[in-house]
Amino acid sequence: MGNTIGVLFKLTTFGESHGKAIGGIIEGCPPHIVWDESFILSRMERRRAGFTLGSTPRQEEDIPEFLSGIYQGKTTGAPIAFVITNRDQRPSDYSQAFDKIRPGHAAYAWEQRYGIFDPRGGGRASARETAARVAAGAVAELFLRQFNIEIGAYVSHLGPIAMAKNEWFADEKIYQSPVRCPDPEIEKDMIDHLSNLEKEGETAGGIVHCIIRNCPAGLGDPIFDKLQASLAHAMLSIPAAKGFQYGEGFRSINMLGSVYNDIPNLKNGKIDFATNHAGGIAGGISNGQDIYFDVAFRPVSSVRKPQPTITRSGEPTMWLPTGRHDVTVVPRAVPIVASMAALVIADHLLRWQSIKPH
Amino acid sequence: MGNTIGVLFKLTTFGESHGKAIGGIIEGCPPHIVWDESFILSRMERRRAGFTLGSTPRQEEDIPEFLSGIYQGKTTGAPIAFVITNRDQRPSDYSQAFDKIRPGHAAYAWEQRYGIFDPRGGGRASARETAARVAAGAVAELFLRQFNIEIGAYVSHLGPIAMAKNEWFADEKIYQSPVRCPDPEIEKDMIDHLSNLEKEGETAGGIVHCIIRNCPAGLGDPIFDKLQASLAHAMLSIPAAKGFQYGEGFRSINMLGSVYNDIPNLKNGKIDFATNHAGGIAGGISNGQDIYFDVAFRPVSSVRKPQPTITRSGEPTMWLPTGRHDVTVVPRAVPIVASMAALVIADHLLRWQSIKPH
Amino acid sequence: MGNTIGVLFKLTTFGESHGKAIGGIIEGCPPHIVWDESFILSRMERRRAGFTLGSTPRQEEDIPEFLSGIYQGKTTGAPIAFVITNRDQRPSDYSQAFDKIRPGHAAYAWEQRYGIFDPRGGGRASARETAARVAAGAVAELFLRQFNIEIGAYVSHLGPIAMAKNEWFADEKIYQSPVRCPDPEIEKDMIDHLSNLEKEGETAGGIVHCIIRNCPAGLGDPIFDKLQASLAHAMLSIPAAKGFQYGEGFRSINMLGSVYNDIPNLKNGKIDFATNHAGGIAGGISNGQDIYFDVAFRPVSSVRKPQPTITRSGEPTMWLPTGRHDVTVVPRAVPIVASMAALVIADHLLRWQSIKPH
Amino acid sequence: MGNTIGVLFKLTTFGESHGKAIGGIIEGCPPHIVWDESFILSRMERRRAGFTLGSTPRQEEDIPEFLSGIYQGKTTGAPIAFVITNRDQRPSDYSQAFDKIRPGHAAYAWEQRYGIFDPRGGGRASARETAARVAAGAVAELFLRQFNIEIGAYVSHLGPIAMAKNEWFADEKIYQSPVRCPDPEIEKDMIDHLSNLEKEGETAGGIVHCIIRNCPAGLGDPIFDKLQASLAHAMLSIPAAKGFQYGEGFRSINMLGSVYNDIPNLKNGKIDFATNHAGGIAGGISNGQDIYFDVAFRPVSSVRKPQPTITRSGEPTMWLPTGRHDVTVVPRAVPIVASMAALVIADHLLRWQSIKPH
Repeated sequence: MGNTIGVLFKLTTFGESHGKAIGGIIEGCPPHIVWDESFILSRMERRRAGFTLGSTPRQEEDIPEFLSGIYQGKTTGAPIAFVITNRDQRPSDYSQAFDKIRPGHAAYAWEQRYGIFDPRGGGRASARETAARVAAGAVAELFLRQFNIEIGAYVSHLGPIAMAKNEWFADEKIYQSPVRCPDPEIEKDMIDHLSNLEKEGETAGGIVHCIIRNCPAGLGDPIFDKLQASLAHAMLSIPAAKGFQYGEGFRSINMLGSVYNDIPNLKNGKIDFATNHAGGIAGGISNGQDIYFDVAFRPVSSVRKPQPTITRSGEPTMWLPTGRHDVTVVPRAVPIVASMAALVIADHLLRWQSIKPH
Repeated sequence: MGNTIGVLFKLTTFGESHGKAIGGIIEGCPPHIVWDESFILSRMERRRAGFTLGSTPRQEEDIPEFLSGIYQGKTTGAPIAFVITNRDQRPSDYSQAFDKIRPGHAAYAWEQRYGIFDPRGGGRASARETAARVAAGAVAELFLRQFNIEIGAYVSHLGPIAMAKNEWFADEKIYQSPVRCPDPEIEKDMIDHLSNLEKEGETAGGIVHCIIRNCPAGLGDPIFDKLQASLAHAMLSIPAAKGFQYGEGFRSINMLGSVYNDIPNLKNGKIDFATNHAGGIAGGISNGQDIYFDVAFRPVSSVRKPQPTITRSGEPTMWLPTGRHDVTVVPRAVPIVASMAALVIADHLLRWQSIKPH
Repeated sequence: MGNTIGVLFKLTTFGESHGKAIGGIIEGCPPHIVWDESFILSRMERRRAGFTLGSTPRQEEDIPEFLSGIYQGKTTGAPIAFVITNRDQRPSDYSQAFDKIRPGHAAYAWEQRYGIFDPRGGGRASARETAARVAAGAVAELFLRQFNIEIGAYVSHLGPIAMAKNEWFADEKIYQSPVRCPDPEIEKDMIDHLSNLEKEGETAGGIVHCIIRNCPAGLGDPIFDKLQASLAHAMLSIPAAKGFQYGEGFRSINMLGSVYNDIPNLKNGKIDFATNHAGGIAGGISNGQDIYFDVAFRPVSSVRKPQPTITRSGEPTMWLPTGRHDVTVVPRAVPIVASMAALVIADHLLRWQSIKPH
Repeated sequence: MGNTIGVLFKLTTFGESHGKAIGGIIEGCPPHIVWDESFILSRMERRRAGFTLGSTPRQEEDIPEFLSGIYQGKTTGAPIAFVITNRDQRPSDYSQAFDKIRPGHAAYAWEQRYGIFDPRGGGRASARETAARVAAGAVAELFLRQFNIEIGAYVSHLGPIAMAKNEWFADEKIYQSPVRCPDPEIEKDMIDHLSNLEKEGETAGGIVHCIIRNCPAGLGDPIFDKLQASLAHAMLSIPAAKGFQYGEGFRSINMLGSVYNDIPNLKNGKIDFATNHAGGIAGGISNGQDIYFDVAFRPVSSVRKPQPTITRSGEPTMWLPTGRHDVTVVPRAVPIVASMAALVIADHLLRWQSIKPH
């Protein structure tokens, strides 16, 4: 269990960062979706090309090979399998990991669960697994296009540097920024901040803001699979994610009820709302307004400084910095957040279709 | 779908606030768990007796009748069904709802999904459904007792009034406070704040903080069912919940990587950590430290003030306050948060057992 | 697990034959289905009133009380819960069961699994649980009516007495027969056969034949949830079922390929087939022809004769016949088979709807 | 949906016979299982090398490449993905299929469901998909070895030629026979029968008998996932399977209750039974005796004779025999039946472990 997400539109992933390949099987994708492999590759490129100040990035090209489920340029309704070969398996320096606990790293907890110690680090828990999410999310987007549903995500906070307010931005604006921040002034501050952290050997966290436009009212499966519950589940499954909020989220605790309530009005003859504090979801069901949410990411654990730790036998020692060092992963999380959102919305669309009268 | 949570330890709920009864079926509860109905009733009482300043609370006693799965004082491994009769079905004043959209209310979105308009409000989406969660959570706790796992939850923020720091509190300390805040000074401020809001006809949100103690290392099902993903899913399924964070959560975005990392050390011959910024989970798996998280709740929508809205045919009108008015639901959410946590941990314990060598 | 069947149209049951009640929760039933409680009760009556030669039948009336999911005479899309109170809890004579293994009975295997020994017999494994299936199957039928889908089932074999050929019969013809055999001559032979067995204290098995008419082409979820796989799963979950075959089934092994193949032709301008050896399913998907299948039931274990056995400590002894004795349960299985078929078809209809373009 | 089988030990397959590859992801396989790739390849060889009188068999070697989930010669608990490349993609003669309905073939029903017509035949519905089942079944067997559980399957009926009685046979005896029949005399008759059919251009069905030895008492998940229900589900998902029976199955309908009941006795100080008419399962739970069952397979549809049919526009025409022609697929179904049984037992072992006290 745990390697599948979704009930009707499902993704099951496999693969370790140091194995032969990673990949997945997408199930439940309806037939007759026009296949657009260049679109999928453009999504993969967004993930690969994230900001990598002060480090030599892993240069995997991450090209998924699709093995099934497509015929004459369309999906067939059969499962769509894909494999992404691990080309960049250069030997990292794992010597320390044989006898030291690595601070901030998951290897210890995994060993508790599976009874297996893999000094190469990463493994299944590696961020590399997220490439499969982006490939599958792109397929979900091909499906969502039919409904004109759009998903935008960007970095709204990087460490203490924050955008003043959230709104919809075109993808071009977001992805022309190396830190995936569509506000040019804030972007500059973020880059300066990262440069300083880089010099100090430090790392930073941040927030990815995501907006889903044109989502029809009616999605969400009360009680336990409220739309926000499915979104929270998906977002907290991303490595390094520490928090999720939708609509006003944690800010809403300081709002008065009369202020928080979104007042209904009429717009072009249709019911609309004066504000959108709720975040496009009421009672667990989309209400036709924009759905928006935030995902918080902690700073990466690999700092370029020695850190105290203990050996596997309990002796005090130091963990020494190793080669690769990303100042932040938040920009690279942007397309992952969008991909997970696409998977959740696609799944709930199918769920809804199952009970809609035809 | 959507009415079940859990994969192995499962709860399926049913019932509307204005129907005959609510209830549920608990599946997967292992046999031989000592049945303790007074314990369960005490948990139900905690939910019922939450703070209700300025309102006449619904006086349901919420006594679940257990119909199956228990024999000679122990669980049998068969499903445990329970029914909670809706005794308090006094006719509320729903006349407005027939032709006005109620601000901040879920009825509109539900109508979009199901094509059904129920002017009595609440219905399946009502907070009343959470009584079934507390009953089931108490059964989960009976199971968790065997592992000495304890769950504590309390109100750490009520509107702008906040406790300075989070730590473990005994249940007695929490539940002797009508606002479920174990810090007597902060409690007093919270009550004052609520009194003021009550006078103004306003409502407040807040945060429930939850700590899980003695959870063994090894729980969590990567990749998509990381322990935090399951917790986030469960928490965001609670009515009025708007956000979830675990460990440092949103605060972590401002922390340096070297500060955030929890440094391993040795304590009584066992691996421990100097801090617990991670919140007891690494790579999606519990690491043996305390698991802690926050759930944000928005202010309730039923303010005691007229609010602008439109009729169902689009004419501007006012929504007038009706009888019942809770200044806040956050204190009543405390046992619900704890119950959902118990259900998640019980489910992950069974998942783990399924792959553990015997 | 194991107490739920279906993926989208789902039934979860609970209850033991000697507990307070049995019942279930139906999930996924679409909204706007016209509720017809008298129809449901008529289905319950069919199960209750099965042939009971030579025995005093348990006189439960088995009236399900529906607790949720219905509003103003229609389903709402919310879960439909129902409870059937166990009225007839008269104390049977279980004294033997305390120290003897009962031949042909499930108590031994259940004790191996759950570590619980319940001398009252039956319990969760009792045929009483099937009342919940019939109640839920009737709800599924309310849904299937919209598609004009009809399900007929009858006893085609009772011990060695067999109908010569299978075809569609009106329900009235089936249910006016106490042995649920619509062929009056065969029915007479069956009753004679049962009378003879009754005198000898013996029991008989048989076959229920089931036909599903007007099922649209396109149902079934390859690869593992082929329509026949779901039907087989459902049928083999019925107590005392020992075999399932669809179309020519086991008979097909003696047919030549050229004879077995159903030859396509044109009928009223639509594609039809000259024969229906396949049983209305090809490649796991319904093809628009009648779906038909057989379910074999073994003789009941409770014969009215002493039978050799051992005590729980291993001493040879005799199991003595107790009060209740049904010569056969096959007639009572008829509505259960039909109910399970209805649940399977309803589930596959929803599954199909989820991927159909709207 | 439909491409996954199992709840805890799960297999999801993908791939079409004319695509790039087929394969699957095995989830839930516990860690620390010793990996034995030569064992897996030997299982694949059993499927490939099945009897192919009178036809040039597809000469795929079917070597699965395992991509993940294995480290240092053991499973890790992570998903095990594998890919089997389709090497033999030689162009078959599909010209007829463009405008004729192929008798006995699934293409028509698939087109009804998915709205896609693929004249190349087979596709996802092809028997080729079963290679993935055998690969995964072999992995399940590696797990079952730890419990000493053995699975044997063989051809007991081929057309009208039948073995007189069923019993356990060593794999060597079964697989040295090209028709997978361990009784040398019957085997000879079967081969003669097939030779005659081959001359006539006909095809034959048959029965695979399967026995599971050393299965511990306690497996099976009442109510709906009784062990026989899971087995029936798995077996009826195999292409061309038409029936399933366990224990005495359809034969039990003619047995008297007193004869059918398996009489308990004591053997080496343990409870045993004088007979095993029940087939090793009581009340849906294994009782420690051998589990045995039969799976009936229809004759293959591809006869070497012209067959009447219609064009896609409804004109009468003839379907002409094409190149490939297997007289029977029953021998090749033997390892598939055994593989599906291994998957079911592995899944139920994990389910049981989840509720067993540790």
